[in-house]
Amino acid sequence: MANITKKVSWSSRADESAAAGEATPLLNGSEQPQHSRQLSGGGSIFQIGRLSTVDLEEEITSEEDSLRGRPKEIPHNEKLLSLKYESLDYDNIENQLFLEEERRMSYMGFRCLEISRWVVCGLIGFLTGLIACFIDIVVEQLAGIKYQVVKENIEKFTEAGGLSISLILWAVLNFTFVMVGAIIVAFFEPIAAGSGIPQIKCYLNGVKIPRVVRLKTLVIKVCGVICSVVGGLAVGKEGPMIHSGAVVAAGVSQGRSTSLKRDFKIFEYFRRDTEKRDFVSAGAAAGVSAAFGAPVGGVLFSLEEGASFWNQMLTWRIFFASMISTFTLNFFLSIYHANPGDLSNPGLINFGRFEGDSVTYNLYEIPLFIAMGAIGGLLGALFNVLNYWLTIFRIRYVHRPCLQVMEAMLVAAVTATVSFTMIYFSNDCQPLGPESTEEYPLQVPNTSHISVKCRETPHLFCADGEYNSMATAFFNTPERSVRSLFHNQPGTYNPLTLGLFTLTYFFLACWTYGLAVSAGVFIPSLLIGAAWGRLCGILLASITSTSSIWADPGKYALIGAAAQLGGIVRMTLSLTVIMVEATGNVTYGLPIMLVLMTAKIVGDYFEEGLYDIHIKLQSVPFLHWEAPATSHWLTAREVMSSPVTCLNRIEKVGTIVDILSNTSTNHNGFPVVVQPAKLCGLILRSQLIVLLKHKVFVELARSRLTRRKLQLKDFRDAYPRFPPIQSIHVSQDERECMMDLTEFMNPTPYTVPQETSLPRVFKLFRALGLRHLVVVDDENRVVGLVTRKDLARYHLGKHGLEELQLAQT
Amino acid sequence: MANITKKVSWSSRADESAAAGEATPLLNGSEQPQHSRQLSGGGSIFQIGRLSTVDLEEEITSEEDSLRGRPKEIPHNEKLLSLKYESLDYDNIENQLFLEEERRMSYMGFRCLEISRWVVCGLIGFLTGLIACFIDIVVEQLAGIKYQVVKENIEKFTEAGGLSISLILWAVLNFTFVMVGAIIVAFFEPIAAGSGIPQIKCYLNGVKIPRVVRLKTLVIKVCGVICSVVGGLAVGKEGPMIHSGAVVAAGVSQGRSTSLKRDFKIFEYFRRDTEKRDFVSAGAAAGVSAAFGAPVGGVLFSLEEGASFWNQMLTWRIFFASMISTFTLNFFLSIYHANPGDLSNPGLINFGRFEGDSVTYNLYEIPLFIAMGAIGGLLGALFNVLNYWLTIFRIRYVHRPCLQVMEAMLVAAVTATVSFTMIYFSNDCQPLGPESTEEYPLQVPNTSHISVKCRETPHLFCADGEYNSMATAFFNTPERSVRSLFHNQPGTYNPLTLGLFTLTYFFLACWTYGLAVSAGVFIPSLLIGAAWGRLCGILLASITSTSSIWADPGKYALIGAAAQLGGIVRMTLSLTVIMVEATGNVTYGLPIMLVLMTAKIVGDYFEEGLYDIHIKLQSVPFLHWEAPATSHWLTAREVMSSPVTCLNRIEKVGTIVDILSNTSTNHNGFPVVVQPAKLCGLILRSQLIVLLKHKVFVELARSRLTRRKLQLKDFRDAYPRFPPIQSIHVSQDERECMMDLTEFMNPTPYTVPQETSLPRVFKLFRALGLRHLVVVDDENRVVGLVTRKDLARYHLGKHGLEELQLAQT
Repeated sequence: MANITKKVSWSSRADESAAAGEATPLLNGSEQPQHSRQLSGGGSIFQIGRLSTVDLEEEITSEEDSLRGRPKEIPHNEKLLSLKYESLDYDNIENQLFLEEERRMSYMGFRCLEISRWVVCGLIGFLTGLIACFIDIVVEQLAGIKYQVVKENIEKFTEAGGLSISLILWAVLNFTFVMVGAIIVAFFEPIAAGSGIPQIKCYLNGVKIPRVVRLKTLVIKVCGVICSVVGGLAVGKEGPMIHSGAVVAAGVSQGRSTSLKRDFKIFEYFRRDTEKRDFVSAGAAAGVSAAFGAPVGGVLFSLEEGASFWNQMLTWRIFFASMISTFTLNFFLSIYHANPGDLSNPGLINFGRFEGDSVTYNLYEIPLFIAMGAIGGLLGALFNVLNYWLTIFRIRYVHRPCLQVMEAMLVAAVTATVSFTMIYFSNDCQPLGPESTEEYPLQVPNTSHISVKCRETPHLFCADGEYNSMATAFFNTPERSVRSLFHNQPGTYNPLTLGLFTLTYFFLACWTYGLAVSAGVFIPSLLIGAAWGRLCGILLASITSTSSIWADPGKYALIGAAAQLGGIVRMTLSLTVIMVEATGNVTYGLPIMLVLMTAKIVGDYFEEGLYDIHIKLQSVPFLHWEAPATSHWLTAREVMSSPVTCLNRIEKVGTIVDILSNTSTNHNGFPVVVQPAKLCGLILRSQLIVLLKHKVFVELARSRLTRRKLQLKDFRDAYPRFPPIQSIHVSQDERECMMDLTEFMNPTPYTVPQETSLPRVFKLFRALGLRHLVVVDDENRVVGLVTRKDLARYHLGKHGLEELQLAQT
Repeated sequence: MANITKKVSWSSRADESAAAGEATPLLNGSEQPQHSRQLSGGGSIFQIGRLSTVDLEEEITSEEDSLRGRPKEIPHNEKLLSLKYESLDYDNIENQLFLEEERRMSYMGFRCLEISRWVVCGLIGFLTGLIACFIDIVVEQLAGIKYQVVKENIEKFTEAGGLSISLILWAVLNFTFVMVGAIIVAFFEPIAAGSGIPQIKCYLNGVKIPRVVRLKTLVIKVCGVICSVVGGLAVGKEGPMIHSGAVVAAGVSQGRSTSLKRDFKIFEYFRRDTEKRDFVSAGAAAGVSAAFGAPVGGVLFSLEEGASFWNQMLTWRIFFASMISTFTLNFFLSIYHANPGDLSNPGLINFGRFEGDSVTYNLYEIPLFIAMGAIGGLLGALFNVLNYWLTIFRIRYVHRPCLQVMEAMLVAAVTATVSFTMIYFSNDCQPLGPESTEEYPLQVPNTSHISVKCRETPHLFCADGEYNSMATAFFNTPERSVRSLFHNQPGTYNPLTLGLFTLTYFFLACWTYGLAVSAGVFIPSLLIGAAWGRLCGILLASITSTSSIWADPGKYALIGAAAQLGGIVRMTLSLTVIMVEATGNVTYGLPIMLVLMTAKIVGDYFEEGLYDIHIKLQSVPFLHWEAPATSHWLTAREVMSSPVTCLNRIEKVGTIVDILSNTSTNHNGFPVVVQPAKLCGLILRSQLIVLLKHKVFVELARSRLTRRKLQLKDFRDAYPRFPPIQSIHVSQDERECMMDLTEFMNPTPYTVPQETSLPRVFKLFRALGLRHLVVVDDENRVVGLVTRKDLARYHLGKHGLEELQLAQT
C-alpha cells in the first residue's frame, strides 16, 4: 500500500510548466470540486458494504496499521483514486537469491517447469469445466424441482380457482432462493457479488483486490449464482464463471490452500505475482470458454482485459486451458444428458445452430445492422446511466448487509409479480404447433418440466391448443428464452409482447445488476437485445412485406442481442469472437463486428462501459492502455512522488522498523542507495518483513556461522499474505543491529530520467507491469518514485486532462 | 546498420564470470566451428541471388559505404548472425521537436489522427481484398483459357491417336507460365519469391528487410503468383496474400509512393517505424483474412508473429482491416460469380461446409487424432529437413538468376510429367455419378472448364461413364483438390491412388518451395495432409468395418491437413483459428488444437519450422519471445558492445562526419554525453544525416536568424530512405562549425545498469521494441550499447547456450 504523502503544490507545479514554456495546464481535479458527486459511506460497487468495509479494514489493518486513524466518513467521490489498493508486481525481483536459483537450474529444470505449467493449465481447464458442469446440473435439477412443485400445485388448484395460491407459492420459492443467495453473499463474502468481471479486470491490470481469488469466494460465488438463477432473477450464470475460473487458477497454481491450511509442496516456483497472473489469465479464459463454448473468445478476453505483454507460449497455454475447460464441460454434460461422447455442444449457453435462411445476409442489410448497433449503444448507455445512479444510491443508503438482502428479496418479489402481471394481461395466444413441444429435444432433457409448465399455462390464460407467448419469454430460464428468440418460427411472438417484454426486462435487469447476489449481466443483456432485435425483424418484415427476404426475425434477434450486450459492456474483439463461437457460425463475423463497433462508439459518447463505471466508482487505480493523448507536457518530475524514503545498502534495523511502522511515508518499495544517494537497488516492504522475521542481521550472521542462509523459499512461503510489521517483535538490542540488503534487493530496478514524458513513463510501466519505477537525476541519484497511482491519476475529462485526487479510502 | 566492432575476448569474459563465482560458460559459437556447415556464395533463402546481392549492395552502399570493402565470398554459415540487417525503431524518438508537436496538438487533433488510422486500416483492408480478388479472377480466367485450349486439342487429336501432342501442349503451356513467373521474380525482384511470410515475420519482429514493402515487390509478387498457380506448380496463392497485404499497408499508411515519386501530403504523422509497423500488422492480418476467410485468424497471426506489445485499440483496428478485406473479396467475387450480395463465402480458399455426419466426433477418436498429429509432425519435419538441404544446395549452386529460372522450368516440366505418368498408369476408375458433375454449383462458376476436362479424361483412360480419380486429384487447382478430399463421398478415392498421390505431391511440393517463383506452401501442405488423412480414414473404416461411425473419411482428411500444415509451419493458435474459420465450424476446435500441438511437439524434436529454418539460414538477427532459459548468468556487461562512440551535446561537424564515415565504429545510434561521459541523450545516424543535410550548425543559425527552424517534417520527408553520408557535401569551413544536438536527440533513452541479467535486458528490449539500449554504470556514465544482434546471438543449442558469430554478410 503505497500511502505516498503527496505534496500537491499546484502553484509550484504550474510554475515549473510555465518555466518550460508551456501553457498552464488544465487541472480540474482540485479546482472544480463542484463536478464531483459527494457521497458518504465507505460501501462500494464491489459489494464491500459496511460489514465488508470492516472486514477490509481488519485485513488492511492486519497488514499495516496506518489506515487505522483515518476518518470513517470521508467523502466518497468518483473523482478520487483510492490508496487502499495495493499493486501486483509483474516484474521479477531479480535479486541475488533469484539469480543464483536460476543459474543453478539446468536446462532440464526449465523444461520440467514448462511442463508443469502445462499441467497446471490443464488442471485449471478441467476444474473450471467441472464447476461449470456442477452449476449447470444443480441449476437444472433445482429448477426442475421448483417447476414440478408449482405444476402440481397448479393442477391441484386450477379447477378450484385457487390460481393466486399457485402464484404465491411460486413467488415464495423464488423469494427463498434469492434470500439464501443474498445472505451468503452479503454476510459471508461480499466480493462474490455480481459477475466478478470488474474484479478480474482489475486483477489482470495489476491491482490487488482483497480476497478476490480465495477459495471461500469461489464457494460463495458458486452457491450464490445457483440461488439467484434458480430464484428467477434477471441474471445469467455465465459471468461468474470467469471469476470462478480465475479463483481456480490462483488456487491450483500455488499448490496450496491457505484457507484449508494445506501446502502440497508443489509448484513453489509459481508463488509470485508474475506466474500467478499468467495462470489467472488462463483461468479467466477457461471460464469464458466454459460459459460460452468459446475457447478463442476466452483467450482474446484474457488478452484484451489483461496481458499487456503478449507471449506466444503463454497464449498457447491459455488456449489449452480454454479448450480443456470447454471439452470437460461438454463431456460431462453429454454423460449427464445420457448421450455420452457427443461433443458438439460446448458451453453453458448455446445459441443453437443458425442454418438455412438465416446463415446468410445481404449487403443492403448492413446499414440496418449498423442502425441496430446504434440503438444498442443508446439503450446500453441508458442502462449504464441508470445503473450508475442506482449504484450511487446503493453506496449511500444500502450498504448494510441486511438492507442488501432485503433489496435482493424485494427485487425477487417484484420480478415474480411483474412476470405474472405481464402474462396475466397479455392476450398473445399462439397456436400450439407440434414444433413447439419438441423444440430442443436433444440439448435440454428437462424441457419436459418447462414445457409441461408452458403447456399448462395456455389452459389458464388462452384457449385450448394455444399457448401464451409472453409466458415463453418470462417462464423460461433466460438462456432458453434467448434461444427461442433466435430460432422460433416467424410469427411466434407478436410485436406488442416483445415490446412489453423488452421494456420490463430492461428495467428488471438494470435493477438486478449490482444487487448483493452472485450473477452475471451477459445473458440478461442478450435477452433484452434479442427481444427488441426480433421486434425490429418483425417490423421490417411487415413494412417491406416481401416475406422471402425478411423472413427470419431470428437473424435480427442475434444482431440485436450483440448490439445490446456491446452497448452495455463495450467489449470489442473478444465479444465478437465469443458471439461468433456461440453461434457456431463464422458468417456473421462482419455484421457482429460492425454492430459492436457502432454500439461502442455511440455508447461511449454518453457513458462508459458498465464494468468501467463500477471500477471507477470504486476508485481503483486502473491503468488503461495508453496515457491520455494530451499528456505529453507532463514529465516524470511532475508525476512522481517525492520525497522518497530510501534505505542504505547496510541499514540499521531500528531505522527499517521505524520506516515500516511510519504511517506517513508508507511506501511499498524502497530504493536502496549508497551515499551520496546513488541508486543501487530496490527492496520491497514484503521482503523487509521477511528479513526482519528471520532476523537476518549482520551481527547474528557473524556470531552464528552455522545459521541457515535465507533462501527464496522463505519468501515464497510467506507469499502472498506477508505478516504486518506490528506482528514482528524486534527487541531494543536488535534495533541496534545492521541489516545487509545487498543479497535481497533488486540490484537493477528500471529507472527513468526526470525529463521523461508521461506517455513514455506510462508505456514502460504498462508494458513491463511495473509496480515501482525509480526516477533518477543525471548522476543516478534518486529523486522520486512513480507508482500506479501517479499514472492512473491523469485522465481525459470533459475539460481536457484532469487529475484525480488521492484518498485513503 | 550497427556494424559494431565487437571485441570477442573470450578469456577476459570467462574471467569476469569466474570472478562472479560462476562456472565458465558453455560458449560453443567459436570453440566448435566443426558444427557449422560451411557454405560459400552470397545467395540466400530470401531469394537474394547473385543479382539480388548486387542490388542489395547498391542499396546498402547507397546508405553507407562501410560494406564496400568486405570480402565477396566469406563462408556463409547458419551459425552466423548477419550484420547487414538494420533494425527498425519501434520506440518513439521523443526529442524536443516531437514533444513540441505533441504538445501543440489539441485533443481534437489526436481524435483526427485516430480517425485517420481507422481510415487507413479500412483502405488497407479494401485494397488487400481487391488484390486477392484480382488474383483469384485472373487465375481462374487464365486457367480457363488453358484448359479450353488443351480440351479442344484433345478433342481434335484423340480420335487420331495424337494424345502425346495434347500432353506436350499442356506441358508447354505450364512451362511458359512458370518461365514468365520465374523470370520476373529472379531478374526483377528476388525478394518477391516464396510466400513472403518469413520476410513479414522478420519485419514485424523489427528487422528491416530491404525492399520488402515496396510497390515493385507487390507488382512482381502478384504477377508471379498468378503465373506459378496457372503454371500448375504445387503451390498455393494464399501465402503471398500476407506479403501483399503488408506491402499495401506500408504504402497506404505513408501517403506517398517513392517508386512513383508521388507524395500526397497526407498521413505524414505516420512516417515512422512505430506507426508503420502497426499498419503492416494490419496489412498482414488483412492478407490472411482474404486468403482464408479468417479475420480472427488474421489478427492472431499478426499478434503471434509480430506485436509484442498488445494494444486494445490497435488490435481492434487490425480486426477491422481483416474484416473489410474478407468482406471486399467476398463482395466482389459474389458480383463476379453473378450472385451479388451473397456474402457467405469469404476467402480465396473455402473448405466447404462440414455438415451432417462430419460435424461431430467422439471421445475415442481423439487418440487417433493425436496419432495423426504425430504423423503430421514427422512428415513435416521430413519436409523441412529435405527443404533445408535443398536450400543449402540452392544457396551454393543455384544463385544466378538464369539458373534459378531454369530450375523453376525444370520443376514445371517434372510436375507435368509426373502428373501425366501417374494418371496414365493409374487404373482407379470410379463411376461418374450425378453429384460429381455439379459438385460446386455455386461457388465455382468455371467448374465447367475443369469438369469438361475431367469428363474428357475418363474417355481417355477409363471406360465410358467412369472417371479417373487420380486425375481429379492432379488435374484440379490444389484448392479444389483439397475441397474434394474433404467432401467427396466415401469410396471416391481408392487407397493406392491416395498413397501414390501423397508420395509424389510431397516431393514435388518440397522441391517447389524455395524456387524463384512467388508462391505459398499452405495449400500444398493442406493437400498432402488431406490426402494421407483421407487414406487413414479409409484404412480405419476398412479395419473396423463399422461403416456408421467411420463413414466419413473427409473428417480425417481435415485432421490430416491440419497435422501436415502444423508439422511444416509450426504455427499454433493462429493456425487453429484459421482452420476453424476456414471450415466455418467451431466443433473441430479441440481436435485441431490437439493435432497442431502434437505436430509441433513431435516436429520440434527433429527440426525447426520451415519459416524459422529460412530465417536462420539467412542469418537474420531474429528475436524470439524470451531469452534462452539458461542465460541468467549473462549480464549486460558481457552482452553489450563496447566501446561505444559517443557524441558531445555540442559537437564539431567534422567529428560527426568522420564518425559517420568511419566504417569500423559504425553504430546507428550514438549516445550523447556531457563531460565526463554522463549520458544525456541518444541520437540516430539518420537524424545526424538530416541535420548535416540541412546544415543545422550553431554558427549558421547565429548569422542567419531568419533561417527556418528544422522541423519534424524534414525528418519525415527523408524517412525511410535517408541519404548516405557520402552524398552530403560538407566543406572544410563547415567542418569547423559546431552542431547543437540538444533539440534533436532523444533526451530520455532507456538505460540499464551493467549488472542487469540478459533475460531482463531481453524483456525490456523486446517489450518496447527497442533498437538501442544504453548500458550505464552507477554514475550514469555510458559503458556500452546493446543492440538486436547482441541479444539474438545467444540461443539454446544441443550443448546448452551457444553464441552465434557476427558477420558482415
